[in-house]
Amino acid sequence: MLLSKMVGERTKTTPSDATIPSHVLLLRAGYIKLVSNGIWSLATPARRITRKIENIIREEMDAVEGQEVSFPVVMPKELWAESGRYYSIGDEMVRFKDRCGRDMVLGMTHEEAAVHFARDTVSSYQQLPFMVYQLQTKFRDEARSRGGLIRVREFVMKDAYSFHADAEDLEKYYYRVYDAYTRIFRRIGMKRVVAVKSDSGMMGGNIAHEYMLLTPVGEDTIVLCPECGYKANMEVAVSVRGETREDKSEPLSEVFTADKGTIEEVCDYLKAPQEKSVKAVCYFKKGTEDVVVVFIRGDLEVNESKLKKVISSDIVPANLKDVPGFVAGNIGPVGLKAAATVVYDESLRRGNNLICGANKPEYHFSGLDMERDLPGVEYVDVSKVRSGERCPVCGKPLSLENGIEVGNIFQLGTKYTKAMNMTVLDKDGKAFYPIMGCYGIGVGRALASVAEESHDDKGLIWPMTIAPWQVYLCGLRLDDENVKDKAFAFYEELQKVGVEVLFDDRNASAGFKFYDCDLMGIPLRVVISPRSLEKGQVEIQSRDKAIKEDCPIENACARLKEIIAEEIARLS
Amino acid sequence: MLLSKMVGERTKTTPSDATIPSHVLLLRAGYIKLVSNGIWSLATPARRITRKIENIIREEMDAVEGQEVSFPVVMPKELWAESGRYYSIGDEMVRFKDRCGRDMVLGMTHEEAAVHFARDTVSSYQQLPFMVYQLQTKFRDEARSRGGLIRVREFVMKDAYSFHADAEDLEKYYYRVYDAYTRIFRRIGMKRVVAVKSDSGMMGGNIAHEYMLLTPVGEDTIVLCPECGYKANMEVAVSVRGETREDKSEPLSEVFTADKGTIEEVCDYLKAPQEKSVKAVCYFKKGTEDVVVVFIRGDLEVNESKLKKVISSDIVPANLKDVPGFVAGNIGPVGLKAAATVVYDESLRRGNNLICGANKPEYHFSGLDMERDLPGVEYVDVSKVRSGERCPVCGKPLSLENGIEVGNIFQLGTKYTKAMNMTVLDKDGKAFYPIMGCYGIGVGRALASVAEESHDDKGLIWPMTIAPWQVYLCGLRLDDENVKDKAFAFYEELQKVGVEVLFDDRNASAGFKFYDCDLMGIPLRVVISPRSLEKGQVEIQSRDKAIKEDCPIENACARLKEIIAEEIARLS
Repeated sequence: MLLSKMVGERTKTTPSDATIPSHVLLLRAGYIKLVSNGIWSLATPARRITRKIENIIREEMDAVEGQEVSFPVVMPKELWAESGRYYSIGDEMVRFKDRCGRDMVLGMTHEEAAVHFARDTVSSYQQLPFMVYQLQTKFRDEARSRGGLIRVREFVMKDAYSFHADAEDLEKYYYRVYDAYTRIFRRIGMKRVVAVKSDSGMMGGNIAHEYMLLTPVGEDTIVLCPECGYKANMEVAVSVRGETREDKSEPLSEVFTADKGTIEEVCDYLKAPQEKSVKAVCYFKKGTEDVVVVFIRGDLEVNESKLKKVISSDIVPANLKDVPGFVAGNIGPVGLKAAATVVYDESLRRGNNLICGANKPEYHFSGLDMERDLPGVEYVDVSKVRSGERCPVCGKPLSLENGIEVGNIFQLGTKYTKAMNMTVLDKDGKAFYPIMGCYGIGVGRALASVAEESHDDKGLIWPMTIAPWQVYLCGLRLDDENVKDKAFAFYEELQKVGVEVLFDDRNASAGFKFYDCDLMGIPLRVVISPRSLEKGQVEIQSRDKAIKEDCPIENACARLKEIIAEEIARLS
Repeated sequence: MLLSKMVGERTKTTPSDATIPSHVLLLRAGYIKLVSNGIWSLATPARRITRKIENIIREEMDAVEGQEVSFPVVMPKELWAESGRYYSIGDEMVRFKDRCGRDMVLGMTHEEAAVHFARDTVSSYQQLPFMVYQLQTKFRDEARSRGGLIRVREFVMKDAYSFHADAEDLEKYYYRVYDAYTRIFRRIGMKRVVAVKSDSGMMGGNIAHEYMLLTPVGEDTIVLCPECGYKANMEVAVSVRGETREDKSEPLSEVFTADKGTIEEVCDYLKAPQEKSVKAVCYFKKGTEDVVVVFIRGDLEVNESKLKKVISSDIVPANLKDVPGFVAGNIGPVGLKAAATVVYDESLRRGNNLICGANKPEYHFSGLDMERDLPGVEYVDVSKVRSGERCPVCGKPLSLENGIEVGNIFQLGTKYTKAMNMTVLDKDGKAFYPIMGCYGIGVGRALASVAEESHDDKGLIWPMTIAPWQVYLCGLRLDDENVKDKAFAFYEELQKVGVEVLFDDRNASAGFKFYDCDLMGIPLRVVISPRSLEKGQVEIQSRDKAIKEDCPIENACARLKEIIAEEIARLS
């Protein structure tokens, strides 16, 4: 297409809330436009990219026998009441009444719709397994949308749902999709993507993986073992820590700690290392006044995802200053009388000579021996892994990296088929609940993630497979009739052989055109100028500078097709 | 794909509210599934059709220099308040508050989003004209959704918006899109589509066309002149009627009409023809108690679309029995004292010897002469055209047909650019409001409309261009190893050369398979059976029976490709 006709302007200014590179560059290059908090319009170059991403996803979903369908954006309350999620999901779900007063919701995901779709039409185990998928708009009323297309409220997502006769069959299929996802991200051009075990969150079910693009701006933390390849989301990651038990246990004794409240202050005051202390971290079960107290080694942090699972409840941090029975700042496991759910982290197992609160103002205990003073308590893992702790598989030091979640896959089990009463008959005519898997990829986030990984200080650098155009044709000195004729003829020729070309036909300087070309990130730049035509050539240069060559104009079309094909093959 | 693996079952039963053929057949063939009133899930065959329709639309929009973009489904109130439509559109628009209490709407159409998108990025007349389009989900909370995919609440629509420097440029572009639409409907395989002048309704603006598929189940009425080709939607259609003025005017006299109220009863009672009477048709301006009285020839009907335009107000039918000043059943133009907006239809111009209400219980007037008794009144056209009335262009008799609106195009003018303050600079640096056009096609309705036009008593008949699969491969007696091997080999071969094939690999009888094949409407049926293989052949038959031939199996693939290519060429 002709750049002079393209709607959307490149700009040098960006709003102050654009802090990450993909957000800044997509705005500056005219790819996206904000409509409302977390809601965007996509300009033509961005839409061309999302269509290519969608087509790659389609091909890979079809390759694992996916059947494309379409479920609605707006759904009746009844569907979500059947699964229970109408009640369990909070403000993230948009609810409204239609003109007849019926309660409706905007789809955040489509497990309910998938079961609704399948439950009357699938009646026999012989019809299993199958997978349906769609590319459909979702709306999640995120409290904190940000980062351009990284965290939005409205987005197009590929969501897929598979149905199986037994867990073994799901497991087998799950790993086929696992591999399909690996291919999708490679073909899209993402380089540092890892699949990590994850918490399945609101989806229910157990085994789940997140595909994480490792990047410093990622909001998720991933625990990696560079040695054996162990990887897990911080939410579920575990590690091995050295025991700090000493040979001889001191007696339990009250010590004066004045007004010192935090574990740092107390350890400082008593000149003890934090790993020889017990920290009390307090929560309310969400929506109640039920107190949860976690005792954990003083130098560690509570992993709230793990904690929620352990106590099967959502939580909010609590300050117990005004709650009767608790002495905030001095809460400890010995002599705690107030009613609370008490959780002991694994890090305290076999600990001795520990400092902990004495449940009394201005006093702590020293010399706590967990086995001696709190015999029979149960320990669970609710701590956050720290960099350098040992890998649970091979024992080597773990490292932490940030990541953006670019896809996820879940083994759902029968949560939805049971709740929504979808049964099929087995060989013997007995009804059973099919087992489900579900599989998601956000299309807009994939676009932004590639931008995040693939850019330099001049602009975006699109992989050939998803670039909005493959070639950026710069005509220089188009006021020269010869250049103009040759440039337009070459533009026509490229289009005729199916090369996607953006022709910068503006009356502008070379510097101006190269600037926009770099900013927009088109993989190949071709220059036709009076100078190049003197030699009967065009100049070909790749955005990443790997290719930089002059080419006779009569061969240029073939040469470009060759470069494009090689690059697409490299990514497939 | 293998039919045995396809989700969705063909069925013989349909719900009682499915009364039109497309609704019945799409349900029976397993194409669609109801989720809520006017909200549907599309099964794989339907989704394959909508993708093909979308691609045809894309090609034709790109051919008129359209730039594909994406506007959001959810938009903030502010955008729609700027245009004023937040207030002027009623219950059809879904409104809700987001988690922060901000007012949001679901997009019914995207004029506001298009202006929002363009207004900051387009600054000079040199950037005009341009057109942006998208394929996006819309939601309109229709009071009466029905007819399967014909009238729904949620739907995917191609909507396009063009921006121009002057009316002449818009006009020129408008007719390019007009032609593109003609090509789209032809390529989709619709046969009886006509473009008719229409009322532009809530879109604002003036010149507009609707593309109507003529079919008995259509809800719109179209006025057609078989002679000269005049066509218009009933909402705006005009006709020429013979005058009924008689040579001699009788005097105006009160006549007793007892309790006769309707014009039929009165004319019957007085033994006068209805075309020699004046009917009073009464309304309230919507949301007010302001009365509107239309006087019209007794044998004609009021065209409410025309009336709304004339009085620039929405209306609701009124019974004036309890409204002071009106004598319901006896309202007439002479001596009407109560406050009302009075409209005289063109049909009364120069009328004489007419019967009309006397504004007095039990009495009418006879001998009304419009010119003599009501000098100086203005006449406007607010009547409905009737079949057989004369064409306004050529004077030949008009006919009426029902139609489904499958697309529409509008010359919007500056309604939105003015309201939303989008200006660009002209040659002399002076700001002006660009002139807009907008252009819509509903994808799901297009699918259903083709089904409505193209079916027989056995099922659907898809045009080759949008058929979910091009070939339905029936393997008969697949328990025979030879048939099975040959059938699967042929299935592989077809896929390899890019023929879209649905392979009925079930263990079922020929009758059962042929029944499903006809119901689903796949254009070509290929049978491989022990009998056909004896002769080394397959049987090829088209759904419309135009083709019925045996073909050596080694040539069958090439032959099918040939038939498919011919058929697609015929429609393009």
